[in-house]
Amino acid sequence: MTDPVTIPARRGKATRVAKGQTIKVINTHGEQVVDTWAFNVDDLTEFMSMEHSRAHILKVIPVVGDTMLTNRRRPILTFLEDTAGGVHDTLMAACDKHRYKFLGVEGYHDNCEDNLHAGMREIGLNAPETPSPLNLFMNIPVQPDRTISFEAPVSTPGSYVLLRAEMDLVIAFSACPQDILPINGKAGQPTEAHFVVAP
Amino acid sequence: MTDPVTIPARRGKATRVAKGQTIKVINTHGEQVVDTWAFNVDDLTEFMSMEHSRAHILKVIPVVGDTMLTNRRRPILTFLEDTAGGVHDTLMAACDKHRYKFLGVEGYHDNCEDNLHAGMREIGLNAPETPSPLNLFMNIPVQPDRTISFEAPVSTPGSYVLLRAEMDLVIAFSACPQDILPINGKAGQPTEAHFVVAP
Repeated sequence: MTDPVTIPARRGKATRVAKGQTIKVINTHGEQVVDTWAFNVDDLTEFMSMEHSRAHILKVIPVVGDTMLTNRRRPILTFLEDTAGGVHDTLMAACDKHRYKFLGVEGYHDNCEDNLHAGMREIGLNAPETPSPLNLFMNIPVQPDRTISFEAPVSTPGSYVLLRAEMDLVIAFSACPQDILPINGKAGQPTEAHFVVAP
Repeated sequence: MTDPVTIPARRGKATRVAKGQTIKVINTHGEQVVDTWAFNVDDLTEFMSMEHSRAHILKVIPVVGDTMLTNRRRPILTFLEDTAGGVHDTLMAACDKHRYKFLGVEGYHDNCEDNLHAGMREIGLNAPETPSPLNLFMNIPVQPDRTISFEAPVSTPGSYVLLRAEMDLVIAFSACPQDILPINGKAGQPTEAHFVVAP
């Protein structure tokens, strides 16, 4: 077991993971959304896809036992454990510069899109685009009238999701820097999170 | 008012639309799903995005008055009218060769991904990727337990959606060739549909 790797608050981090290894994504302080992407390490144009995964798992939120698919409908990540209350999101795009401008921010604001690309560059890779992310710990309830909203997480400090890599892949995370909506807790204080890759 | 253009059964069709023009998408025979894409005509890497639109309209299904956004969060299509019961889908990827292989089809099966690209090529354009489509008339209910399923349409013959172009764009359609799941009606018989572009 390796030491936990820090996903710094408001920043991105990526790492290579071999097929069969597991990745534990830890919500260290309990209210931090972690945008998560996975790419085929041999061809970054193949990546985990929310719209292909939903058609396969037949849920808007994956549960333990579900396998996420790539945009070529191949298995890429399986949910093995989830101690975070089972609340995640597959519906929302990564936040980006346009989103913060819309929310009234003047000038630059950290954002998950830039964090993805910075995290990938840090290990010498270029993500070809910004796929719709798997937003771990993110609470977007779908109401019977089909409306959705940005709510505070229900996860608790130290809760985690354990994923298994179904191919050799690159996994990328962003500790979401959203501090305007309550998506990272009502205090609006983004924090670090951690992950552990194990054989 | 121009004559209706046919989207042939199991096939794709695309056309250029100027900002401010309207597009009426007609479910001619009542049970046909029409996968719909829109691209910025001046830069095809900017296109209508389900994940960015959901974050803006705060619904999983757009209703009259809602404006869909591009992957750069700019307005691209607005719902002006909907006589089709308000049931559409933003959750599911376009069907593709991998999907039909998974469903047990041997050999080639028409699919919405190929239809998108064929329709674009027919007017001299190349779609840079296959964005997650706006699946008009497609019935994917979301249950309180977060499960989803492929159901028959609730639309009726001649029902339609009227959209307004918010930028100069290319709109592409696929009359979905799905004949295994009941998504185009329980009879599993994909049909043609039609559209009309008006000033």
